[in-house]
Amino acid sequence: MDADDVTLIDTLHNIATTLRIDSVRSTTAAGSGHPSSCCSAAEIVATLFFAEMRFDPRRPGEPRNDRFVLSKGHAAPLLYAAWAAAGLFDRAELLTLREIGSDLEGHPTPRLSFVDVATGSLGQGICVGVGMALNARRIGSDYRTFVLIGDGESAEGSVWESAEVAAHERLDNLCVIVDVNALGQSRATALGHDMEAMAARWRGFGWHAIVVDGHDIAALIRSFEQARQTTGRPTVILARTIKGKGISFIEGRNGWHGRPLKSGEEEQRGLAELDAQFVEVPGGRDRKPAIRPPAGRAVAAEEAPRPIEPPAYTLGQQVATREAYGTALAKLGTSDPRVVALDADVGNSTFSEKFEAAHPERFYENFIAEQSMVGAAMGLASRGAIPFPSTFACFLTRAYDFIRMAAISNLNVKLAGSHAGVSIGEDGPSQMGLEDLAMMRAQPTMTVLYPCDAVSTERVLVEAAYHAGPAYIRTTRPKTPVIYANEERFPIGGCKVLRRSDGDEATIVAAGITVYEALKAYDALQRSGIAVRVIDAYSVKPIDERTIRAAGRETGGWILTVEDHYVGGGLGDAVSEVVGPDGIRVRRLGIREIPRSGKAEELLDRFGISASHIVEAVMGLRDLRGQP
Amino acid sequence: MDADDVTLIDTLHNIATTLRIDSVRSTTAAGSGHPSSCCSAAEIVATLFFAEMRFDPRRPGEPRNDRFVLSKGHAAPLLYAAWAAAGLFDRAELLTLREIGSDLEGHPTPRLSFVDVATGSLGQGICVGVGMALNARRIGSDYRTFVLIGDGESAEGSVWESAEVAAHERLDNLCVIVDVNALGQSRATALGHDMEAMAARWRGFGWHAIVVDGHDIAALIRSFEQARQTTGRPTVILARTIKGKGISFIEGRNGWHGRPLKSGEEEQRGLAELDAQFVEVPGGRDRKPAIRPPAGRAVAAEEAPRPIEPPAYTLGQQVATREAYGTALAKLGTSDPRVVALDADVGNSTFSEKFEAAHPERFYENFIAEQSMVGAAMGLASRGAIPFPSTFACFLTRAYDFIRMAAISNLNVKLAGSHAGVSIGEDGPSQMGLEDLAMMRAQPTMTVLYPCDAVSTERVLVEAAYHAGPAYIRTTRPKTPVIYANEERFPIGGCKVLRRSDGDEATIVAAGITVYEALKAYDALQRSGIAVRVIDAYSVKPIDERTIRAAGRETGGWILTVEDHYVGGGLGDAVSEVVGPDGIRVRRLGIREIPRSGKAEELLDRFGISASHIVEAVMGLRDLRGQP
Repeated sequence: MDADDVTLIDTLHNIATTLRIDSVRSTTAAGSGHPSSCCSAAEIVATLFFAEMRFDPRRPGEPRNDRFVLSKGHAAPLLYAAWAAAGLFDRAELLTLREIGSDLEGHPTPRLSFVDVATGSLGQGICVGVGMALNARRIGSDYRTFVLIGDGESAEGSVWESAEVAAHERLDNLCVIVDVNALGQSRATALGHDMEAMAARWRGFGWHAIVVDGHDIAALIRSFEQARQTTGRPTVILARTIKGKGISFIEGRNGWHGRPLKSGEEEQRGLAELDAQFVEVPGGRDRKPAIRPPAGRAVAAEEAPRPIEPPAYTLGQQVATREAYGTALAKLGTSDPRVVALDADVGNSTFSEKFEAAHPERFYENFIAEQSMVGAAMGLASRGAIPFPSTFACFLTRAYDFIRMAAISNLNVKLAGSHAGVSIGEDGPSQMGLEDLAMMRAQPTMTVLYPCDAVSTERVLVEAAYHAGPAYIRTTRPKTPVIYANEERFPIGGCKVLRRSDGDEATIVAAGITVYEALKAYDALQRSGIAVRVIDAYSVKPIDERTIRAAGRETGGWILTVEDHYVGGGLGDAVSEVVGPDGIRVRRLGIREIPRSGKAEELLDRFGISASHIVEAVMGLRDLRGQP
Repeated sequence: MDADDVTLIDTLHNIATTLRIDSVRSTTAAGSGHPSSCCSAAEIVATLFFAEMRFDPRRPGEPRNDRFVLSKGHAAPLLYAAWAAAGLFDRAELLTLREIGSDLEGHPTPRLSFVDVATGSLGQGICVGVGMALNARRIGSDYRTFVLIGDGESAEGSVWESAEVAAHERLDNLCVIVDVNALGQSRATALGHDMEAMAARWRGFGWHAIVVDGHDIAALIRSFEQARQTTGRPTVILARTIKGKGISFIEGRNGWHGRPLKSGEEEQRGLAELDAQFVEVPGGRDRKPAIRPPAGRAVAAEEAPRPIEPPAYTLGQQVATREAYGTALAKLGTSDPRVVALDADVGNSTFSEKFEAAHPERFYENFIAEQSMVGAAMGLASRGAIPFPSTFACFLTRAYDFIRMAAISNLNVKLAGSHAGVSIGEDGPSQMGLEDLAMMRAQPTMTVLYPCDAVSTERVLVEAAYHAGPAYIRTTRPKTPVIYANEERFPIGGCKVLRRSDGDEATIVAAGITVYEALKAYDALQRSGIAVRVIDAYSVKPIDERTIRAAGRETGGWILTVEDHYVGGGLGDAVSEVVGPDGIRVRRLGIREIPRSGKAEELLDRFGISASHIVEAVMGLRDLRGQP
């Protein structure tokens, strides 16, 4: 090692010390936070930012920049200190950590220009990193993706889901660093500092694994170089570290997770210890190496989307909305190169296989790993793609924590869940999506769409694609007839009034498969001389408040909702929410118990959402009319 | 191998052939199902049932029986055929598969006496199996637990979460068999038949891994024996198999997943091929070896729970409900040996550490692996324990698919989520549970409890423990004053009317932290001469319909709900659901956007659920009164 190297290493050492000092000071000022989790990774982050990553620190969003994901989001103060050190903002701002007026939140969120995806739910960063690495391939960029994860969070299964996908995709532009500080929140991790056991796991999953002392900057530099030169597979750097490193009284001690140093004597003692660790370098302790600029190929601006052809169905044609979803997605993929699809080994059921056939280079198979699928979609979306991850609606429950974080990050992830409700029939309750509307509707940034026919499916898919933020499209297994003309539009927040007259006695609000039951009920009621209004609420969230409130008022103050979903959290609640302040009465039909196997029609009837139940409910409303 | 062995193997071979025939016949009769996935595992199941497992086939629930979990639940026809072959029910019943009147559903559910936990969402069986194996240790039983998983489902991260926990717990009473048929639903699996790659993964996770030909019965027998003799760690048997084995035209072919043979020529051809595979044994093709009876130690009946002491708090005492939860759980553990606690490395935040300190032998650490935690709780519950898995409310989203399956199985899993809502403060949105009420309330068998003080927390915890079925308890991070006397009771489905007068102009329904905001608002309104009713809806589901409807009617038809939760799916919806048919007007205060870091009080106010917002909303209702 020549003199320059010695200087570089000493300089990086001083930067790491500064990052530690800033992490301690900001968390003590905030009165909460995780300084010990910052201290273990200080050399890793200093080396990455100032000796390995290529990026423009003044333009964190620059497409050619290498990406850094802090999966162990509780080490946020370290991340913030690194960007301050890189010159993006003033170091003094670090002391606003966790204040309500500051974007330097307790865990990183995309309110900050240098955070692509919110972290703080452990085990998600690697999944997101896989998406970013896939995106580099999609746009033909050389940028590399670095993800810093904790050893504790490696217990999350999502880490291993994405480890498999990354190896399968041969993502040599992805480098994961594990900060192996051997301590979780409440106790030692399962593997402690058994570095070889950890390496065996990663190698078992097909990764190039390097074991290194995470406080040895020269070794870290060599490891990153090895990672860069490794082709055909991703690299994991297993960095053996000490939690609380640099502060003698917290180093390697349990009980210091998520605990700042107390203001006053304790903080001063810690800071004094850290201060003593600076070494002399030419230029002084604030000297910083020049950050390596992005040097990858300039990436062409993404091709503007071409207009998509309108749907091409005929009225009455029998098409499952899940199949119309696949057809529409393949079409959209042709018109817009940003559109990508992700599967979890059910592409032949969700019909995302149609996209795969048309655009194999933008189709990402995650095998049976829904967390990895949604996480990769988050990473792709954060870098400009418009990803459509799809599986059975019920299995999106597997990825709810990822969906939650995608909603927090307001990412352009367009989720699709097929096989909604009891109408799937014989496969039984484990395969029925019956809580998907509830879980999606709860997320404030989420748009929820539930088309009933092929035309509306194609239309809402395009609406979802170009709506800013996350969206969910719910589709049905059985075939349903096309009821809308190809020219019909389905804006987000709208609904379709399918039947109406001045003498309507009640409003039936349906969506998806129950639209057909409502129309059958309408016919039956009509034969008995009873008029009702029928609304297709294809936009469950936002729901068409104006039209539904007006309909409720115009039909005697009665609304009946009908949904192939559990009664809690779905369409009935969505309608109740908007008419609640009006005193309009809402009765709801939905699934009220655990369903079972059977034929679709049998189940719709047995679980209370068929046309005959709607007729009966309308008759019941009639009997009640006038009662308080 | 002596003559007897040859006869045993031939006999098992014939049983496997019979299982294949039954799987083909039942799925063809049903017109749907997964015969190819049954065929690959026929020898594994035949050998397990008739040469390895010790159980009483007439009493599947017998506590000393070995347990079998079919994690690849789509192979249900094989499971059903095995129990028919074991003599539990008539083979002719198999032809009712998937009919609405039959309990032989598309995927196994506990409607069947021999199914402990519903399967069909892949990757859950091993987690459940870990719980069953832990339960054997808890009750001092020798029973062993066998879990059959698919190679495709091994992509689910939950498999690796539980692999880690099982090795850490040294569960040598657990044996996982992987049916490596190399084909998923839509394509080949990532690893195909690379058995050594798979073995490396399992060995990396600390398991004893055996690679075997899954159609070689003698080899399977030896593998099970090896597993039985392995101590200190669990065993995985990686069985190389052919999907569709035994039927030449589907063997190893993609495109045959979830596809029955067509009735008529196709079925006949398949059955003829299988029929030709029977071999001559003394006694004929229906000969079966005697099933090995349970031989483990007789387990003493579980000790009856002793009465639990009432809560011992003083009015006004400041106690966080999360801490009261830990205190109550430790107490309950003392009075009832069936009570166990499971953690995901946050026991010092959820205060389940109090249970750990008191009952370390019944505390199961899952590290940062929520799916494993809830899955193990499901297995424990299915065998008589009363498990309390707990973590931050937001991280239960990680296990929502498991919670869904626990609800389908109506298991006695008592979930607890701490750190609910924006009131956690500085950690920011990633750590705030804001959709937990929505996701729990959607599940029809779930009870949802949300106490506001230490006394009600202790009371509802005991109620939850002895309520049949899954329950969820939501707790709060900051300290709140005790407002209830220790004698007060909190039955499921009740509520507490905290303030009332004949002149009440509106009803405020609150729960948890917002009860205190509602009480502050009450005082402020009182000072302005406005009387309101205040209700603590500690039982969010079932909600006290009678009391809340009556209150609504008595207070001018106006209800205001206030919750530290997103507005969709929570308390507002729960109240709307029960008053919807009455025309009572409901206004809701809740979180309507992604929150951020800040102090608890700042956040309650900024996001619209503080006392001042309640006062303002009541004034708003007043202005509206009389309007339509």
